[in-house]
Amino acid sequence: MISSQQALKLILKNTEDFGIEEIPFLESVGRVLKEDILADRDFPPFDRVSMDGIAIVFDTFTAGNRTFKIENVQAAGSKQLELNNKSNCIEVMTGAVLPINTDVVIPYEQVTIANGKAIIEIDKINQLQNIHKQGNDRKKTDILIKKNRVISPSEIGIFATIGKSTVKVAKQPKALIISTGDELVAVNENPLPYQIRRSNVYSMLSLLEELKIHAETAHITDDKPLLKEKIARYLEQYDVLLFSGAVSKGKYDFLPEVLDELGVKKLFHKVKQRPGKPFWFGKKGSKSVFAFPGNPVSTYVGCLKYFYPWYKKLVGIQYENQESAILSEDFFFKPELTYFLQVKTKNEKGRLYAIPVVGHGSGDLANLADADAFLELPDDKSNFAKGEVFPLIRYR
Amino acid sequence: MISSQQALKLILKNTEDFGIEEIPFLESVGRVLKEDILADRDFPPFDRVSMDGIAIVFDTFTAGNRTFKIENVQAAGSKQLELNNKSNCIEVMTGAVLPINTDVVIPYEQVTIANGKAIIEIDKINQLQNIHKQGNDRKKTDILIKKNRVISPSEIGIFATIGKSTVKVAKQPKALIISTGDELVAVNENPLPYQIRRSNVYSMLSLLEELKIHAETAHITDDKPLLKEKIARYLEQYDVLLFSGAVSKGKYDFLPEVLDELGVKKLFHKVKQRPGKPFWFGKKGSKSVFAFPGNPVSTYVGCLKYFYPWYKKLVGIQYENQESAILSEDFFFKPELTYFLQVKTKNEKGRLYAIPVVGHGSGDLANLADADAFLELPDDKSNFAKGEVFPLIRYR
Repeated sequence: MISSQQALKLILKNTEDFGIEEIPFLESVGRVLKEDILADRDFPPFDRVSMDGIAIVFDTFTAGNRTFKIENVQAAGSKQLELNNKSNCIEVMTGAVLPINTDVVIPYEQVTIANGKAIIEIDKINQLQNIHKQGNDRKKTDILIKKNRVISPSEIGIFATIGKSTVKVAKQPKALIISTGDELVAVNENPLPYQIRRSNVYSMLSLLEELKIHAETAHITDDKPLLKEKIARYLEQYDVLLFSGAVSKGKYDFLPEVLDELGVKKLFHKVKQRPGKPFWFGKKGSKSVFAFPGNPVSTYVGCLKYFYPWYKKLVGIQYENQESAILSEDFFFKPELTYFLQVKTKNEKGRLYAIPVVGHGSGDLANLADADAFLELPDDKSNFAKGEVFPLIRYR
Repeated sequence: MISSQQALKLILKNTEDFGIEEIPFLESVGRVLKEDILADRDFPPFDRVSMDGIAIVFDTFTAGNRTFKIENVQAAGSKQLELNNKSNCIEVMTGAVLPINTDVVIPYEQVTIANGKAIIEIDKINQLQNIHKQGNDRKKTDILIKKNRVISPSEIGIFATIGKSTVKVAKQPKALIISTGDELVAVNENPLPYQIRRSNVYSMLSLLEELKIHAETAHITDDKPLLKEKIARYLEQYDVLLFSGAVSKGKYDFLPEVLDELGVKKLFHKVKQRPGKPFWFGKKGSKSVFAFPGNPVSTYVGCLKYFYPWYKKLVGIQYENQESAILSEDFFFKPELTYFLQVKTKNEKGRLYAIPVVGHGSGDLANLADADAFLELPDDKSNFAKGEVFPLIRYR
C-alpha cells in the first residue's frame, strides 16, 4: 500500500497532452487558455475623454480666460474634431476622442453653460486632467493575458475588446465514467429491497462538468467476459476511464484482473487513506484508468483528490496556491491512513476555518450535502488539534 | 449620492420572487433547490455487508469454533440468503444484504479458504462488525438536503440515490444585457480609430452564466426615441435589464431620462464608490433595471457587488458567510468613496491575503485578468493598513 502523497505523485507523472483546439470566445469560461493574448492596439486606442464636460487649451486658461465659446460637440464614437480657435472650447463626452488642439477637460460639474458659452467656475486645473492618454493602460502587442490561465468572465471582456472571437484552449480528455455492481438499478427504477440506485456516476459526471469535461456514462454488470469485452472497446474510444466499484477483494471484483488482462499497467492498487483505500490506477499507452471503490464518498473524494489534479496538470494549470484551512476543534483519528474529513468552511476575518461534519462516518453520502470540503489529515499522526492548519479540498 | 451600503440595502429590499420550476436533476448544478429532499427509504436500506469476507454466527465463534463450512455466496444485488446451519458460514460481498441468521462479518484478510471451508485466523471479533446496519446513516423520511441550497455535484449523487430524476429549483429571472454608446462596434469588426469593440455585455453575460442565468444581449445606439421604443419593449419581455453606459452627465446619456419617461422609478442614481459612481437603479412594477456606467471595470464590479446579491436573495440563498481577506500591504485612497481595489488572493496557512494589483488604475480592464477579486475598502477612511481585514468579492 502506498501513501496518498505517493499515489498523487505517480498520477501527476502520468499525464498526457491532449493538444489544443480553437473555440468561440463566449464558450471558453472555465477552459484553459493556450495562447498569450496580446493587445491589438494601444489601450486606450486614442487620447480618451474620461469625464463629460468641455475640452479647452490649458494655456488659454492660465492666461486668465474663464469664458469659452462652444465651438462644437465631440461625441463618443465620432471622428476627431479640431478646435479652431484657441479661445473656444468643445463639449466632450466620456469615451470620445480628445479634439485636436485641446489638452485639458473640465467636467460639467465645474462649468456653467449658457448662451452658447461655458464659464469655468474653478481656478485650479491640471494640464491633461480627465484625459486617459493613448496607450496609458497597455501598449499595442503587450501581453494582456498569459496562456495557461483558467478563463473567467473577466477574460471574456478582454477577448471581446481585442476582437478575439475564437480562442485557443486546451482540448479536454474524452472521459467515460463507468459503474459496476449487480446491486445497481437506474435512477428512475424502484429498487428491490437488496438493490440501490446508480448514483456515483452522476456525482462524478457533475464533478467533471465543473471542469468543463462533458463525460459520458456506462454501466457494466459483474460479469467478467462482458467487462473485458466492453472495457477493451472503451479503452479504444476514450482517453480516460473512471470506474466506481469492483476494486476490492470480493469474488466479483473482477476489475483489476480484467484491466491486467487487457494490458492496462497497474501503477498502484490501494492507498493508505480513508475513505477510498482500494483505489486502483493504471495506464495503457496514453490511456488512463482511475478505478475508485464503489462507496459514494470514496468515489467523490477520489475524483477530487486525484482526478482533478491530474486534469489540471495536463491542461497546464500551475499549482501555486493549495488552499488550506484551520481546524476548528480537536479531532482524533487513529489508523495510519490519510483521513479525508468532511468539513464545513467558514471565513472569519480573513481566516478560513474547517468545522468537522462528523455525521454517520466517512461512508455517509448525505454528509456531503452538509459539508462543503474535505480537510486532508495526514497519516503520520492521530491527534489533530484545534488551530492546526491542513490542506483543504473544496467542492462548493 | 448614497453610500454603497445604502445602495445595496435598497437593492435587496427590491427583489422579486420568480417562482419555482422542475428540471432534470442532471441539469441542476448551480441552481437553488426549492424543496426539502427526504430519504425515500432507510440508508442503508438493509443490513449491508461493508467488507468482502464471510458472515457467521457470533455465538458459534465465541463457543470456540474457528472452521466454518461455506454454505453459499451472498453477492451484492442478490436476494437475501439464509444460513441454514449455525456452524457454517456464507461468503459475503461488500454491498450485499447480510444473510439471515448471521450477525458478524470477518474480512477475507483474516480468513484462510480451502476445500470449501473458511478458517478464521484471529481470536477477537465484535458482534455486528463490518455490518452497516439498516437506517444507520439516515432513516426513511429524514431530510437529506434542506431547500435553498445551491446544488453541487454532491447533491446530484443524493438525488440519484433516492430516485429524484427531476428537482424543484428557483426559476431564473429573464435577463437582458444592453450596451449603449455610438463608439461601440461588434467583436468581429475592425474599429475605426475613434471606436472600440463591445465587451461589457460579454463579461456580464459570462458573469450571469456563472449564476446559471442564460441572459440575452442587445445594443442600442445613442438615439433617444430609439432607446425609448426599444426599452419599452424590453421592459415587457424581460424581468431585469442590465445596462452598460449612458448614465453619466454626457449630452447623449439619455438613459435616466428615458427610464423616467417610461415610468421606471429611480431608487438611486450615483453611489459613493470608485469605480462605478454613476450607477442607476430603478423599478417598474416587478421589473428591475440595473444601469451601470460604461467603464469596463465599473460594469464588472457593479454586477458582482449589486446584481449578484440581488439575485442570491431572490432565489433564497442565505448570506451566512461574507468572505473577507487580509490586506497584504498598506494602501492609501483619499476620496470619501468606497473603493473596489483589484486584488490577487493568496491562501497561506488558512489565512486569506489580498494583494493589490494596482496596474493602471481602476479603469484598466486588463487588470481584471491579473486580479481575481475586489477588496471593498470603506469610504470613511483613507489609510488602509497591512493586516487589516476587509470584505472580499471574488470572481474566480
